[in-house]
Amino acid sequence: MVEATGLVAVLERLEAGREAALGRLMEFLRIPSISTDPAHRGDVRRAAEWLCGELAGLGFEARVHDTPGHPMVVARSAGGGTRPLLFYGHYDVQPVDPLDLWNRPPFDPAIEEGATGPVIRARGAADDKGQLMTFVEAFRAWKEVHGALPPDLILLFEGEEESGSPSLQPFLRAHADELRASLAMICDTSLYSDGRPAITTQLRGLVGEEVVVRGADRDLHSGSFGGLAANPIMVLAQALGALKDRNGRITLPGFYDGVEDLSDTLRQDWQALGFDAAEFLGRVGLKAPIGEQGRAPLDMVWNQPTAEINGIAGGYAGDGFKTVLPAEARAKVSFRLTGRQDPAAIRAAFRDHVRRFVPADCKVEFHEHGGSMASVMDVSDPAFAMARRALGEEWGREAAYIGAGGSIPVAGDFKLILGMDSMLIGFGRDDDRIHSPNEKYDVESFVKGARSWARILAALR
Amino acid sequence: MVEATGLVAVLERLEAGREAALGRLMEFLRIPSISTDPAHRGDVRRAAEWLCGELAGLGFEARVHDTPGHPMVVARSAGGGTRPLLFYGHYDVQPVDPLDLWNRPPFDPAIEEGATGPVIRARGAADDKGQLMTFVEAFRAWKEVHGALPPDLILLFEGEEESGSPSLQPFLRAHADELRASLAMICDTSLYSDGRPAITTQLRGLVGEEVVVRGADRDLHSGSFGGLAANPIMVLAQALGALKDRNGRITLPGFYDGVEDLSDTLRQDWQALGFDAAEFLGRVGLKAPIGEQGRAPLDMVWNQPTAEINGIAGGYAGDGFKTVLPAEARAKVSFRLTGRQDPAAIRAAFRDHVRRFVPADCKVEFHEHGGSMASVMDVSDPAFAMARRALGEEWGREAAYIGAGGSIPVAGDFKLILGMDSMLIGFGRDDDRIHSPNEKYDVESFVKGARSWARILAALR
Repeated sequence: MVEATGLVAVLERLEAGREAALGRLMEFLRIPSISTDPAHRGDVRRAAEWLCGELAGLGFEARVHDTPGHPMVVARSAGGGTRPLLFYGHYDVQPVDPLDLWNRPPFDPAIEEGATGPVIRARGAADDKGQLMTFVEAFRAWKEVHGALPPDLILLFEGEEESGSPSLQPFLRAHADELRASLAMICDTSLYSDGRPAITTQLRGLVGEEVVVRGADRDLHSGSFGGLAANPIMVLAQALGALKDRNGRITLPGFYDGVEDLSDTLRQDWQALGFDAAEFLGRVGLKAPIGEQGRAPLDMVWNQPTAEINGIAGGYAGDGFKTVLPAEARAKVSFRLTGRQDPAAIRAAFRDHVRRFVPADCKVEFHEHGGSMASVMDVSDPAFAMARRALGEEWGREAAYIGAGGSIPVAGDFKLILGMDSMLIGFGRDDDRIHSPNEKYDVESFVKGARSWARILAALR
Repeated sequence: MVEATGLVAVLERLEAGREAALGRLMEFLRIPSISTDPAHRGDVRRAAEWLCGELAGLGFEARVHDTPGHPMVVARSAGGGTRPLLFYGHYDVQPVDPLDLWNRPPFDPAIEEGATGPVIRARGAADDKGQLMTFVEAFRAWKEVHGALPPDLILLFEGEEESGSPSLQPFLRAHADELRASLAMICDTSLYSDGRPAITTQLRGLVGEEVVVRGADRDLHSGSFGGLAANPIMVLAQALGALKDRNGRITLPGFYDGVEDLSDTLRQDWQALGFDAAEFLGRVGLKAPIGEQGRAPLDMVWNQPTAEINGIAGGYAGDGFKTVLPAEARAKVSFRLTGRQDPAAIRAAFRDHVRRFVPADCKVEFHEHGGSMASVMDVSDPAFAMARRALGEEWGREAAYIGAGGSIPVAGDFKLILGMDSMLIGFGRDDDRIHSPNEKYDVESFVKGARSWARILAALR
C-alpha cells in the first residue's frame, strides 16, 4: 500500500488535470463506435486504436487484438505487485435511433447544465466510455505522481458489449494465461441511489429457452376439428402455467437446488438501503411486490430465482375473432438464477416438464437462448472491504454491497473461464438515459469516479 | 300430400328444363354480389333485384326490403297449406382474392369437366347461389305442373351472410309475424360424403371472448423487476391452462350443465356413418382424436362442448430473445356448446375463473365476441322422417342425420327469434372450394338438389 501522501498527490493531480481529462473523453466520444451497425465497423476499430494509443502513451504494453467481430484492446503494466488485477470496460456504444429525439448530435459531445449539475451529453458518455475513462485517468495521475504505473494491472476493453459479446468467451479462452488475475474490476454499473456508492457483489444468472409446440400441418377450423384435434396454444398454456403453483413457487423438480438464503450481513446491509418497493413499483404503475409473503423486496429481486414468460404467440390475435385451432404456438421463457443453481439442470428440467404436457399428436421443439450461473462474489476477500472503505472516503457515505437482478455476462465469463470474481463498481445514475436518446454522464460521476479508482488503487497496490 | 303422379310430372319437368335452369343460374352467378366489399354494394342490390324478379315471375308476392346493410328478399306463396314453411338461402358471395389463383374469371361462370362429372365453376356456385336456386327451380317446376305454387311458402334470402349477417336478427324481430313458420329449410350445407344425402339436426353453439391482462404501464426488464412485478403472460397462461384438467375435462363450475348424451338412435346413426377419424385427421397431419377415452370421434366433434384458445399474444415473440416483462397479454378464447348449455352462464363462469388468477397489480378486461346456444332440432317432428325418405329416394342411399361441430348462426336466430327449428339440407361437396379460388358446384348437386326439394315439397305439401 502506498503512503497516504502519495494518494493525496494523485487526487490533487486529478483535480489539476480535470479539464484535460474531460477533453480526452470528448475526443473518445466523437468516435461513433456503434458495434451493432456494420456501417460503423471502421469507427469501432478507430475507437479501439484511439484507446490503445492512450494506454501506450501512459506506458502500458498495449495491443489491439483482432477477433471475428470487433477488436479487443489488451494492455498491461509491469509486474511486481502483490496480486494481478484485471480492469474491464467496453468502448462500443448503442445505436442512436431515433435520432430526432436527441437535443444535440449524439457524437458531438458537450458539457451541459443538468438538473443537479454539469453533465457530459453524448452517446456512450455513461455507457461505457465515460466510466472506462475513470480507470484511465486514475492510472494517468498515478503515473504522473509516482513516475510509474501501478504494477500488475491487466486491462481488457471490449468492442462488442452492446451486441452480445460474441467474441468474448473465445477470446478469454484463447488468452486465459495472459488475462488471468486474482480479481476483476468492472466499471459498467451505477451508484445505488443518487450519491451513494455501491459494489455489486451478486448477479442473477439466466436460462433462456424458446419453445415451439406444433400440431396439425395447417390452421384448423375450431368447429370442424374442436374436440378432435390438439390445440398447441392450450398445450403451451398448460405447460407454462404449471411452472408456478398458486403461491408463486416454481414447480420444476430440483429447481431450488443451490438457492441460498441471504447471509445475515447482506440481509442487514440490504435492509439498511431503505429500498422503497412501493415507490419503485409506483414509477411503472404497480403497487405491491408479488414475491413470497414476508420476504424483503430486494431479496425477491436480487436473491430469489424467477420463471418468466417473456413472449408468447399463436393463432389469431388481431382485431375481431377467428375460430382457428392454430398449427403452432411459441413462447420465450427465461429463468433468473441465484446461488449455485445449475443452468443446464434447469434447462433439462424445463424441457422435461413441457414434454409431459405434449400429447401424441403434437411435437415440441426447444431453442436455447443463453445460460449462465448466478455470480456470487466472495466478499470475504479483503479487497472488498478495502474498496468499500475507499469509496466511502471519496463519496462521504458508506458504500453499499448490493445485488443485481439482471445478468452482467462478463462477470460470469470471468468466473467460468478465468476462475476469478469481479468487483462491480460504477458511477452511473438512474437518469443517465443509457440506450436512449440524450444519454449523459454527470461530470461529478466522471471526476469522483476517477478519484474513487485512485483511492482503490492506493488501497490495493 | 300430392299424388305420386304429380311428383313424377314435376321431376320430368325439372329434367326437361335442365338447360334453361343452368342458364338462369349462370345469369345469377354473373352478378358479383360480394357483400364485404363496399365497391360491390350496387351489385349486391342487383342480385337481390334479379332474384326478386325471378320469384315474382313465378307468382310469389316478392319484395326487396332495405336494411341498414344489404337488402333482404322476402317472398310468399298463397295460403292454404297445412303448415307454413320458411326457405332460407343467401345471395351474397365471398370475395375472390387472390384473383390470380383462379383458372377463369370468377364471375364468368362456365360448365367444366370435373374429376367426377361436369361442374359449374364460379364464385358463389356452391355458396350459396347454386344451392339457393335448387329451391327456386323446384318451385318453378311445381308451378308449371300444378298451375300454382305450393301453398304457404315463405322465402327469405339474405345478402349479408358472408359478412356476419349484421341485419338478420333485427330484421327477424321486425318482421317476426310475416316470417314465422313451423319449420325452416336451410340450403347451405353439404352432402355427408360423396353422394350420401344428409340432414343436419344439431349444431354446436359458440361463446367467444377476448381477454386482456394488463400489468405495469410499460414493458419492464425482467432482471430489474423479475420477482417483484406481476407478469401478464404468466397470469393468462395460468388462467387459461386451468380451463382444462389433465383429462381434458373443462373445469368451469357448471360448464357441463345442459350437455346431453347422444340418444341411442343418433348414436347408432352416427356409428353407421363409418367416420374414419384417422383418415380425417391424417389429412391435416394428425393421428389420434384427443377427446375422452371411449367416446366416438363424431360424438367428440358434434355432441361435446370444447374450450379452445384461438389466439394469444404478449411480450416479445420475434427472432432472438428479449428478457421483457410485458405490460399486457391477450388471448381469444371460445367455447363450442352443445345441448342446452347457456352461453351467458358460461361467459360469466369464464370471467369469474380468469379473475381468480389476476393478482392485485393486474387488471383484466373482457370483450364479448358473440354467443349462441347449440341448435338441437326436434327430429320427432314427422317432417324430418318425410324429408329423410324423400332424400333417400332421390339419391338411392339413406339420408343421414348428422351433426355439425360449427355454428350456422341463422338456425340459432330462427330458433331464438321465431321459435322454429331448421332442417339443414344441402348438396355441396368437400371439394367445392367455397371461400377459395376456383369454387365449383357439381351439376349433379344442382340437378338432384332441385329434384330433392321437389320430393320434399311433395311429401310435406
